Amino acid sequence: MENTLYYVGLDVGGSSMKGGVVDETGRPLSGVSLPTEAHKGQDFGLERMCETIQAAVASAGLTMNQIAAIGVATPGTMDIPAGIILDPPNLRPWQNMTVREPIEKRFKVHTAFQNDANAAAMGEYWVGAGKDLHSLVLYTLGTGVGGGIIIGGIVVEGEHSHGAELGHVKIEMTNPRQCGCGRLGCLEAYASATAVIKRTREALAQDQGQSRLHVVKDLSAKDVFDAAALGDELADKIVEDTAFYLAVGTVNMMHTINPDVVAFGGDMIATGEGFLQRIRRHVAEMAFPVPAAKTKIVYAHLGSDAGFIGAAACGRQLYKKKATE
Amino acid sequence: MENTLYYVGLDVGGSSMKGGVVDETGRPLSGVSLPTEAHKGQDFGLERMCETIQAAVASAGLTMNQIAAIGVATPGTMDIPAGIILDPPNLRPWQNMTVREPIEKRFKVHTAFQNDANAAAMGEYWVGAGKDLHSLVLYTLGTGVGGGIIIGGIVVEGEHSHGAELGHVKIEMTNPRQCGCGRLGCLEAYASATAVIKRTREALAQDQGQSRLHVVKDLSAKDVFDAAALGDELADKIVEDTAFYLAVGTVNMMHTINPDVVAFGGDMIATGEGFLQRIRRHVAEMAFPVPAAKTKIVYAHLGSDAGFIGAAACGRQLYKKKATE
Repeated sequence: MENTLYYVGLDVGGSSMKGGVVDETGRPLSGVSLPTEAHKGQDFGLERMCETIQAAVASAGLTMNQIAAIGVATPGTMDIPAGIILDPPNLRPWQNMTVREPIEKRFKVHTAFQNDANAAAMGEYWVGAGKDLHSLVLYTLGTGVGGGIIIGGIVVEGEHSHGAELGHVKIEMTNPRQCGCGRLGCLEAYASATAVIKRTREALAQDQGQSRLHVVKDLSAKDVFDAAALGDELADKIVEDTAFYLAVGTVNMMHTINPDVVAFGGDMIATGEGFLQRIRRHVAEMAFPVPAAKTKIVYAHLGSDAGFIGAAACGRQLYKKKATE
Repeated sequence: MENTLYYVGLDVGGSSMKGGVVDETGRPLSGVSLPTEAHKGQDFGLERMCETIQAAVASAGLTMNQIAAIGVATPGTMDIPAGIILDPPNLRPWQNMTVREPIEKRFKVHTAFQNDANAAAMGEYWVGAGKDLHSLVLYTLGTGVGGGIIIGGIVVEGEHSHGAELGHVKIEMTNPRQCGCGRLGCLEAYASATAVIKRTREALAQDQGQSRLHVVKDLSAKDVFDAAALGDELADKIVEDTAFYLAVGTVNMMHTINPDVVAFGGDMIATGEGFLQRIRRHVAEMAFPVPAAKTKIVYAHLGSDAGFIGAAACGRQLYKKKATE
């Protein structure tokens, strides 16, 4: 037995899954990635998860009997307490797939199960943007807008595994955009990378041809942020509006959770301090003075490692709980 | 020493304060009300709080040495952990008034301090709409819209005492109404009693004289709900829209907290099961299927006793915590 405890975190995504060993201080000792290949079916998927866990342990120079707990994070929909994937659009054709129990049985190690955005929030809370704070709200900005809420070390996972679906908080009634979820007025319909591209295309259709974005093929959210940084007016308006929408979401969390920190992570966030300043400015106008003055608004710190580090943190939390039972 | 423990709850409001003794099962043994008379100043106010606490204890046929803990709830703004009233608009001219500590010193009994809507949520959680459940969101509908969130017995009071300011979650960007708080697009600007009256007046100004509300003097939200019940078309539209706005707020909580139950309390809620059905119908259309199917949407159970019962519950929680230290 070592002096420190080691935990494995596994973050299962639509295209790849990432596993790593994390020590008691939250430091990653390894990080390995394997393709998810959900199309190969559920048995393959479960085997691939076990494979990634084993590779992470080996890559850290450890053996499974040195692992105190495992944490597995997957995209929703899911039943978190039951440890079951229900019907996640990014993992088709997986459906009603029991995940936690077979992994726990296979490795004979306590295994936690969590939503991927919740796990990322837990990672940021433990050793990232929320380190040493009491509460954190994380927005993950990518194709969609995900969220995670941690209060006093507890994941707000909700009673039906729908806690912190922060992309689906409604911010508009009069003229609501349709969201990818099929509903109307969700934050995600305004502030996801997909929404940024859609809003840009709409603006370009109205534009008299001055924006440099007219000639960009396969427009990405990054193209829009890059053009804005170069002074493109149309792009700048899109970026400014995006900051406003995210500020509305942020203010709603400040008036609901009132956390120490609101952090932004995900692929879309490689846009520099200026974008954060725009969000902060809108927040200062819209929030109550005390939370407006005191709430930290920052980028997430852990990048794409947040998920597996947070999954490991969930495993660690389970281990500590079991140890006191 | 008795076999059961007794707690005093005190709910301080703008016009009156209500105190009562509650036993270990949450049953109120007394309930007394005295005018707040904030205009008489802070010393008077603190004395009045102590007087109400003593009257509640006497009215229950008990003496102070039989009281295990006290809980005091006040309207915001406040610093909950410090036990200080900051600058509540309903308690002018009270400002920066230390409440918890002098009461605790006076009675030599552990004293908890909490926001009034949070306390009401705690009361409903303990013995009302959230009894035996794990989490509850409470909306208090009156002149304004207040809120309280309880998860696993913990009040989500926020890091800066601004948790669950649910009337100030933003639901509209394009054409936002101005809220009493001075900001734009808040739920309160749509769904408070004040907002119901304002929206009705606007509709009457456009109406060709058919609504019975044209002849009502000193229009109240109750008048509007009553007229709707009698088939008044204009009033019915106002009530239906109010249900929609509250459903948007409810869905936002279902996608953030995902609680077992969302409860509606406050003066405005004497409007029968029909209004609740309207809210539920809109929620079913706007929320994700699983929380839409599983979240209870109900009226609060405790009426105007929720505040002091919940304040007592906060006292009880403090007592239990101290007992294990």
